[in-house]
This record gives sequence, structure tokens and C-alpha cells, in this order.
Amino acid sequence: MKKIITVSREYGSGGRDIAKMVADQLGYAFYDGAIINTVAEMTGLNPDYIKKNGENTRRSHFFTYGLGMNFNGLSLPDYLWQKQRELILYIAQKGNCVLVGRCADYILRERDDCLNVFIHADMESRKKRAIEVYGDPKDNIDKLLKDKDKTRKTNYRYYTDQIWGEARNYHVTLDSSLFGDEVCADIIVDLAKK
Amino acid sequence: MKKIITVSREYGSGGRDIAKMVADQLGYAFYDGAIINTVAEMTGLNPDYIKKNGENTRRSHFFTYGLGMNFNGLSLPDYLWQKQRELILYIAQKGNCVLVGRCADYILRERDDCLNVFIHADMESRKKRAIEVYGDPKDNIDKLLKDKDKTRKTNYRYYTDQIWGEARNYHVTLDSSLFGDEVCADIIVDLAKK
Repeated sequence: MKKIITVSREYGSGGRDIAKMVADQLGYAFYDGAIINTVAEMTGLNPDYIKKNGENTRRSHFFTYGLGMNFNGLSLPDYLWQKQRELILYIAQKGNCVLVGRCADYILRERDDCLNVFIHADMESRKKRAIEVYGDPKDNIDKLLKDKDKTRKTNYRYYTDQIWGEARNYHVTLDSSLFGDEVCADIIVDLAKK
Repeated sequence: MKKIITVSREYGSGGRDIAKMVADQLGYAFYDGAIINTVAEMTGLNPDYIKKNGENTRRSHFFTYGLGMNFNGLSLPDYLWQKQRELILYIAQKGNCVLVGRCADYILRERDDCLNVFIHADMESRKKRAIEVYGDPKDNIDKLLKDKDKTRKTNYRYYTDQIWGEARNYHVTLDSSLFGDEVCADIIVDLAKK
């Protein structure tokens, strides 16, 4: 039985929703973007600011260095990364949980009780979900998805020296556009129980 | 129900064995390296020669161009690729089957009845299987696996312009070293039936 499930996901793939279903089915704690509020408390920074920069470290890296800002001798993105990392290690120690994004698979790589998952989907399904479920503007959707992919890929590479979305970094990857959210959740739950 | 299952795999991951189990469970025809004998019949080339060059097109590309050889105006690897491609399209048309390797996922990308799978495993398990099951020499195993990965990656990139082992190219990817061959086969069979 795996105690910790990390879910990395393409924007618009439904990875977060699938992760939530898994947490509900297993009775595990669930951590997604709301983790930011805790990081905000730890750092005194504005949650919106962290949200913007917590998964887009390269851009803000450049930005804060440009302004000559630093936090405990670190750039803001490196400081945020350190705080998020501390929090994820603490959460994982507390007990059974599902963690969405934030390089949790890499941060917890020394543990042998993690199941690392990656969820992706074809472009049409991602666009549809982004527009219809997340409410993203239709006329700019191609650029939005491209930017999101680039940001996540760059950020993951910067902190983990691994390639985001490469199968060998994850125990299982699934195409939610072929199988649907429920089937993906069921498979993850089954595998977590092995 | 998916009619065709393509299985790409890291050397030593057991992908071929898993593919065989899936074919047996579903009652599907199974095509792996033995496809080479048919390509040999089609081309009049030696099966051993095709085996060496059929998934290592870059090396032999250089080699045959260097010698100024060509087949129907193509380099040997491009000619082999064309023949393998024809054969895979023919096999897929015949009916339900499991196909191992040879960029079948890419060759059949226009069809909507394929389930594309990628099997990988951690390095220790791959070494163990290569030595104990395939009988590869122990003292050279690291280099052997590295070379196999490089060859498959380069070959896949050359003919498909996609990245070998990138999650988004496959509907499902699985780490056989965590789950074991049987569990992987069961999951693939389940997904094929959806």
C-alpha cells in the first residue's frame, strides 16, 4: 500500500480532479494549490504572489534578480522553492496523502512509499476543459496552454534536473482524454493498493 | 474495445513478456522481433542483418551511405523502415493484434482503435533481467543498456520526430519494476477493454 501519491499533470488534463477522486476513494488528505496559503503563512508573502511565482520560477527568478531582491540570501523563487519543499516533506511525514504538482515526486524521491503519477490529455480535450470548466478565454487558448506547458517544463527542469512528462520519472502515466477521469482514478487507486 | 495494442519498451523492462501476456489474455495475434523474418522474405535480405539494423537506423544509415549503397533510391535503413511500415500497416488491417516496438504507435497514429503502451523499469531491475533472463554479459551491462536506450531513442526520433519515452506519446506508461509483469499486463488488458 502506497502512503503518498504525487500527481503531476498537464494543464487542462483534469489531473487535479482525478487526484481529488483518488484522495476521496482512499480516504487520504489532499493537497493542491491551497498549499500556497500555508506557504504564505510561513513566509509572510501574499498568496496571490506565490501562486503566480510558485510554479513559474524562471520568470520571477529573472525579475527578482533584476531588482536586486533576495530572501535569506536566496532569490525569491529559490526561497519559495525551499519553503514549499520544507512543507511537502512535513506533509508527507504526517501521513497518507495525495499531492498535486510542485515537483513533489522529486522532493520525495528518497521515500519508497510514493506512487508517482502523470496525467496528460490530447490538445482538443485540454482546450475544451480549460474553456468550459476553468473558464479560460477561448480566443487565447492555444497560447495559454503552450505557455503553461513551457512554464511547468522549465520549472521542473530547473529544480529537478529531470524532464517533465518523461515516462521514466513516473510509475504510471495516463491519457485522461482516452480513458476519462473516473477510469484514471480507479487505476491509480488500484495501483496504490498493490 | 481496442483492436490494436502497441507496446514500446526499454530494454530489460520486460515489455515484450508483458505484451505476450496481453496477447494471450485477449486472444490477439502477437508480433515482436519475429516480424523480421517476414521483412526478410519481402526484401530478400538476411534476417540477422535486418535484426541488427531494423531498430538502429542511424548507424546503418551512415554506414550504407558511406558505401554508396542504395535500395530503390533509398538508403538501407530507409528502405527497411518502408518495408517494416508496409508490413505493420498490413498486419493492423488484418485484425486484432499486439505489436512490440518498431514505432508501431507512430505508424498507426491515424487509427483510433489503438492502445499505445510504454513499459519502463528502474536500472537495477533492467540489469537483473538482462543478465538473468536474456543472458547478457554482466561485466558490460551498464554500457549495453545505455547503448540500447540511445539507439531506440535516436531511431524513434529520426522516423517519428517525437521523443521516445515521452508520456504524451502513449495512452499509458507503466514502471514494471514497481508493479511486476502480471499487474502491468492486467492493467493493459483492462484498458484495452474500455
